[in-house]
Formats: sequence, structure tokens, C-alpha cells
Amino acid sequence: HLDQHMEGKLFVLQLAVWSLRGVARVILANNPLSGALILAALYWASPWQGLLGTLGVLASTLTAVIIGQDSAEVSAGLHGFNGMLVSLLMGVFSSAGDWYWWLLLPVCFGHVHCFGLSPLLDRWDLPVAVFPFNIVIVLYLLCTGPNNPYYPHHLATPPGALELNATQLDTAEVVRGIPLGVGQIYACGALGPSLIILGAVLLYSPLMALHALLGSAAGTLAGLSMAVRHASLYSGLSGFNGALGCMGVGGLFFTFSWRTHLFAIASAFLSAYADIALSNLLGSVGLPACSWAATLMVTLMLLLTGQSLAAYRIPIGQVKA
Amino acid sequence: HLDQHMEGKLFVLQLAVWSLRGVARVILANNPLSGALILAALYWASPWQGLLGTLGVLASTLTAVIIGQDSAEVSAGLHGFNGMLVSLLMGVFSSAGDWYWWLLLPVCFGHVHCFGLSPLLDRWDLPVAVFPFNIVIVLYLLCTGPNNPYYPHHLATPPGALELNATQLDTAEVVRGIPLGVGQIYACGALGPSLIILGAVLLYSPLMALHALLGSAAGTLAGLSMAVRHASLYSGLSGFNGALGCMGVGGLFFTFSWRTHLFAIASAFLSAYADIALSNLLGSVGLPACSWAATLMVTLMLLLTGQSLAAYRIPIGQVKA
Amino acid sequence: HLDQHMEGKLFVLQLAVWSLRGVARVILANNPLSGALILAALYWASPWQGLLGTLGVLASTLTAVIIGQDSAEVSAGLHGFNGMLVSLLMGVFSSAGDWYWWLLLPVCFGHVHCFGLSPLLDRWDLPVAVFPFNIVIVLYLLCTGPNNPYYPHHLATPPGALELNATQLDTAEVVRGIPLGVGQIYACGALGPSLIILGAVLLYSPLMALHALLGSAAGTLAGLSMAVRHASLYSGLSGFNGALGCMGVGGLFFTFSWRTHLFAIASAFLSAYADIALSNLLGSVGLPACSWAATLMVTLMLLLTGQSLAAYRIPIGQVKA
Repeated sequence: HLDQHMEGKLFVLQLAVWSLRGVARVILANNPLSGALILAALYWASPWQGLLGTLGVLASTLTAVIIGQDSAEVSAGLHGFNGMLVSLLMGVFSSAGDWYWWLLLPVCFGHVHCFGLSPLLDRWDLPVAVFPFNIVIVLYLLCTGPNNPYYPHHLATPPGALELNATQLDTAEVVRGIPLGVGQIYACGALGPSLIILGAVLLYSPLMALHALLGSAAGTLAGLSMAVRHASLYSGLSGFNGALGCMGVGGLFFTFSWRTHLFAIASAFLSAYADIALSNLLGSVGLPACSWAATLMVTLMLLLTGQSLAAYRIPIGQVKA
Repeated sequence: HLDQHMEGKLFVLQLAVWSLRGVARVILANNPLSGALILAALYWASPWQGLLGTLGVLASTLTAVIIGQDSAEVSAGLHGFNGMLVSLLMGVFSSAGDWYWWLLLPVCFGHVHCFGLSPLLDRWDLPVAVFPFNIVIVLYLLCTGPNNPYYPHHLATPPGALELNATQLDTAEVVRGIPLGVGQIYACGALGPSLIILGAVLLYSPLMALHALLGSAAGTLAGLSMAVRHASLYSGLSGFNGALGCMGVGGLFFTFSWRTHLFAIASAFLSAYADIALSNLLGSVGLPACSWAATLMVTLMLLLTGQSLAAYRIPIGQVKA
Repeated sequence: HLDQHMEGKLFVLQLAVWSLRGVARVILANNPLSGALILAALYWASPWQGLLGTLGVLASTLTAVIIGQDSAEVSAGLHGFNGMLVSLLMGVFSSAGDWYWWLLLPVCFGHVHCFGLSPLLDRWDLPVAVFPFNIVIVLYLLCTGPNNPYYPHHLATPPGALELNATQLDTAEVVRGIPLGVGQIYACGALGPSLIILGAVLLYSPLMALHALLGSAAGTLAGLSMAVRHASLYSGLSGFNGALGCMGVGGLFFTFSWRTHLFAIASAFLSAYADIALSNLLGSVGLPACSWAATLMVTLMLLLTGQSLAAYRIPIGQVKA
């Protein structure tokens, strides 16, 4: 394994591998190579966002080392991905423009909130997932607000908001939104980098990549059925919760079978609908719904212990990724 | 028992009995006859609402059979009542008028969210109650919103909203609101059907019917003390959370004694006040508070393990209803 | 001990001691003398607020005796402090002026909601803390609203609200806000009484008093870094969540060491930032954030079981205070 090879090397190299694993963890993969590909895609989409993501994952992993978290968890990248997502979304919502260096301050310290939640969820045999990220980014956006003199940010628009100059729906754009939905997991809205991120998932597990695309398509369908804003469909924001919900059930926490495959698609639709609902609710005070919907839905699916699904459930300790 | 008699019969008949039990479960009864009476009352009040309720309870029970939920629970009607309530409230809040056939689509699929919550609550020895219904209906209303082209709905008015042309309070109407509060558990606002629903409770247990009326009266008093909108008092909406809170504590989860009787009345008042608070909060974004207040309050009461009440607590496995 | 000396005395005297302990409990102390000092400070700041606080703690302790809560807990004052805080905040937010006698009605009955939460939290080895107070006061304010004919109240202003006529920040006022932050734990905004309250903490434990001041200072710094309203800094409202968060970690639930000291300061900052976020969120519907932030943050800190902190954790049963 890569980890054993690394043991003798310098701490800096080890930290890099842990962090790359952390980058890949966001998309439920556990592979430093996938992480490197994704990071490259982020730098391609926007060097500033790439820098923020790198700093976020490094700072978060370092903090975990310093406060003495379990070293197996740290080396598996479990303490990096929440910090990275927090950093990326701080950058996306900031209205101060790129290369606003003061943003590095919250990026380096914002993730500290993340460390208290794991023991709570462990008791229920549930994964921590991106709960900490979702909580921290909502707190950050609430703290600063649109008029903050130091860290101003955009308000999120609810997907159900009325469009005044609504035009005909462009099918090509909607289809383009499906791979973009995979990129939006990293808050990345460009097509090329999104395809590279999809490639990184493919590298880790083709089954996962299939579920990601299926989930994003299901999310887009859900968005169409609820007549959300066109911008929401075109940018892939409608799809990314579906993609996460589908990947979590279909490729990670349950062994594959036709039954779990159907559940994965159901999970994608439910995640997407829940995302529309939460986005409308939080959008009324200008907050984004982030990935609350997919995180909650996968957690609910894991709590499902009906006879038909329990047999396929992989215990948390043995989850491959 | 009725169930044994049924075993040899056709599956359709069995399903009908399970569903009728599911109908009665909403009001904490476990009796297919009560369920049939209630369904008849709903058809009397509005055939469209009756149809929606029937479809909701059938679809929900069928789904439970298909995904392989515990068969004892299915035959006790435990997987039908949430689906029924979701359907009824979808119909009540829809602003597209009666016989809007597209509504059958969400009615048949909306209840799928309901199945993940039971294992979570089982671990705390708590009943699932109507938590799933409350969550699903809020998500549905958030998803669609008042301007949705397919499923438009009314906004809920908070009970604390100012009345511009307030008139003198009509005592007769307020008294009429007390039995209506029992009917409002099924989103039914007509006096005749409400009395039949009360009769269905009486058939199952006179003690429960007494607590339902007492609770509804307590809820109306709470509404008066907080000067809520007159419409809220007249329609029975002030009373139904009180009724549910009173029945849950007084007749179902605790054995009867003067002490639990007093607690039931306290629970009715607390449920009613909590309902006013939640309705004002959720009403500020146009959402109804459904039966969140009573559900939370009965759950809190069940968590009360002070010496005086624990002795009267009936373990969840042995709850009669 | 004081308790043994009391055993033979009258019930009224015992109740007084239990209630004084309850008063001191708010600030995490367990000492009737501290309680007496604090109550005197409240009467000095405002006789009406003092009366409300006295009534609240007495009614709450009496209810606990009547419904048969554990007598060791009652005599330790654990059932008084939530009732007291509810009463104090009802008084502060009431816009009907002092000596509005109808307010005594909710003061005497409002605390009843508080009794269901302890068993829930006990299962996780967590303290009940002020969760019940926070829930009840939010419900009360939601029930009544600003236009209620019987119990009108002020709307809370979010700290991130724009100030139209903003002036230069006054450093002396900001420094004065630090001790006021300790007084604000009892909703007391006058300097003299705040210093007496600080003295009451000093009497119980100098370490705790130090942490209270440090935490309040950290909260004020957090407020400055987010550019909150000047009024929020001057009145000590920015500091009191920091003070509570710092005291909980630094002096109560963990044994003292340099590591827990650093964590206490981190907790103070995190509590303060979370408080700004929650105040902005709840402020958008006119609600105060009370001490939600500090309560949640200390609970999170207690859930932290990383190797470095678990060793310092004091089991709930043995918490001195």
C-alpha cells in the first residue's frame, strides 16, 4: 500500500497524501490519485478556488494532527474534506472578488468547528459525512451577511423564485447541467473541470461514476418537475444533491445489487426534492442549502433497517472508501 | 380476532383491513371499524378529500409491503396513517381546486420519505407517531410554493396575525370549534363529519373520546388567552393539537389514574401553546405547523421519567392501540 | 455541610437554600451564598427583575418537588435555574413596562415545559444545561409576538443589522462591555450589579471568574472582528455567550490544565461567533438567540473524545458544581 511506503518519508509528504485523500473523500472516494486529479481540475477552473481548497484541506488535516485525533482516521483523509468544502464555499459566496487575501483567515480557522460531531454520530453507527461542513458554512454566512465590511457575500437565490423574464427552456443547456452537477460537489461550474472530476471518480470506481451521473440526471428531472429557475438547472445546482445521494447509497454504504440500485435512484430523487425544499426555505433568508439534503437523506437510508435492505448494509467500520 | 379470520381471504381484503386500521391510527385507535366510520365521514365532508385519503393510506401500506417492512407492523396499520395524512393535507393546501387529477401523483409517491424514521425513534423507546407526516408535508409545501405552475398552494396564515376588521368574538362559534378540533385532526372542518369522527373514537374507547374533547377545549382556551385570530378558533385549528396531546398522554401511552389525567390536561395546554408558537414561526414563511406541537409534546412527556410518572408508563411494545 | 444542618429546619428554609443554589447554578456555581449575592445584585439593578427572578426560581423548584423529581437534584438547585432565566427574560423583553402584574402568570407557569428534557440528555452523559430555558423563552416570544394585547414584547435586533447613524467606536465603552457580559448572563445591563455577579463567581471559584472575564473579552473581540452593532458591544450582549462557553469548558466539565485552558479560549471564540450567526438568523424573525450558542458549543466540546481531551473530562455524575 501507498501508506506503508510513505512511513519512512518526511512528514510533509505524508501530510500531502493525507490531504489528497481528504480531497477525494468529498466525492466518497479514498484514493490520493483521484484527489490530485480533482485538485488539478479546481486549479484549472479557478486558481484562486484551487488555492483556497488546498489551504482548507491542509489546515484541517494539520489541526487534526495537532489536537491528537485518531491517526488512522487522519491518514485516511477523514479530517480534511470538511475543511476543504468550507474553504471552497467561502470563496464562492464571497462578493469581494478573487485574490481577496483576508479570506485566508477564515479559511484557515473556519474548520475548527468541525471536530466535535464525529463522536455523536459514531454512537448511531452513522458516517460523519459532510454534516460539519454544512453547519460551519451556514454559520459563517450568517455571521458575515451581505453588508459585512470585512467579508461581504452574495445572497443565495431560492430555486423556486419567480423569473421575471423567463424564456424557453434550452434542452442542450439542461443536458450540459448533468455533468456540471458532479462538478458542483466542489462548487465548480465549468464543464471541462467537471468532466475531469467525473474522471477522478471513474478512476476510483466506475460504478460510483455511473451513479454520480444517474443521480445528477435524477436531480435535474426533479428540478424540471418542480419548475425551478432555469439558472438552477443550467448550472448543475439542481443535480449535485441527487448525485451525492445516489453515490452514497449505490456505491458506498450498501453492497451492489439490483435492489440497492433501485434504492440509489430513489435516494437521488428524494435528495433532489428535499434540496429544492430546503433551498426555498433557507433562500428566504438568503442562505444556500449546500448538501444538507443529500447528507440527511443518505443518513435516513442508513437508518432503514427493513428486512430487504439491512442485509446489504456495510458496517461503518468496513466501508471501503 | 378479526386478523385471524382474514388470514385465508384474499390479499385485497387484508389490505383493506390494514388500511382501515391505518386510518384509525391517526387518532390513536386500532380498530378497522373506527377507520371505516372515519373514512365515511371524510367522504361526506368532501368526496375529493375522501378519495385522496383512501389513495394515500393504500399507497403507503402497499409500499410497506413491497419494501418488506415488518408484517406485524403492516397489519396493525402502522405504515398507513402517515401516508394518509400527507395526502389529506396536500389536498387541503392545494389551490388548484378539487378534482385536480395531477395531485394524485404526489399523493401516491409523497409518503416514500416516511420509512426511514422508525428505526431512529425505536432506539429511544419512543413511538414514531406523526413525525414523518409532519416532515413530508413541510418539504412538499416548501418544494411547490404558492407560484408553482403544477402544484400551487395556499400560504398558511399565522394565528397571531393582526386582523384588520376584527369583530366581537362569537361564543357559539367558539364552542362549535371544540368538536371541530377533533375533526381537524383529519383536516376536516365540517361539524357533521367531525362528530362522526368523534363517534369513531368513542367506539374505540370512551376515555379517549373524553380526552379528545377536553384537549380540544384546552386548546381553544389557550388560543383565547393568546388572542389568536378568530378564524383560528372558529375552525377548530386552535384545538386539534390540544386534542392530540391530551389523547396521547391520557389514553394511550400511560395507564389511567388521576395523576395521568392531570398530566393529560397539562399536555393539552402545553401542546396548544407550542402550536401557537410554531404556527407563528412557520407562518412567517407561509408554512402550517401541522401537528408538530402535539407530536413533540407527547414525545417529551414520554421522556419524563420522574418517579411519579414512570410507574404509569406503558412500554412501547405493549401499547394497546 | 449546609444541607445536613438544614434537614431539621422548616421546609420553607430548605426551599430557600435550594432556590439560592438554583440562582447560582445559572453561572455554573453551586453555592447558596453566591446565589444570595447574585439575587441582591438583581434587586439592585431592578427590583421588578429581582422579583421576577425570585418567583421564577421558587415556582420552578416547587414544581419539581410536587411532580416528584429526584430529591438530590432538587436540593442541588438543578431544577431552579431554568425557571429563573425564563422569568428574567420574560421581564426584559416585555414591552408593557415594569410592575405589569399580569406577567406573573406566565412567570409562574412558563417553566413547566422544562421538565422533559433531562432524561433525553442524560442518556448521552451530557448536562441539561440551559437547553430548556432557551426552548421555553423562544416559544413564549413566538406565542405572544409584538402585537399581543396581553403580553406585548420588543423584537430583538440582529447584531449584523445596518446602523444608519454609525459613529466612531468608543474604546472605553467596549472595555466596559466586558464585565457587563458577565452580568448579561442574568439579563442585567448595569455595571455595578454585573461586578457583584462577577464577585459571586469569584467567591465560588477564582478560576471560574477568570474564565468568565476572558470569555467575555473573547466574545467582544469576535464581535469586533465581525463588525456587529455598537450597541451589542457596549451592552455586553456580544460577550455573554463567550463567557458561558469559556466557563463551561475551562472550569466545570474539564479538570484544569494548559490544554483545557486553551480549549476554553477556543470555546469562547466559537461560542461568540455561533452566537452572532444565530442572532442574525433568529433576529430576522425578531427573536433573540439567548444562550443557544454557548449551550450548543459546550455540549459539542463535551462530545469531543479525541485522546488529548478525553483524559481531562469529568464524568457528569462527578461534576463539582
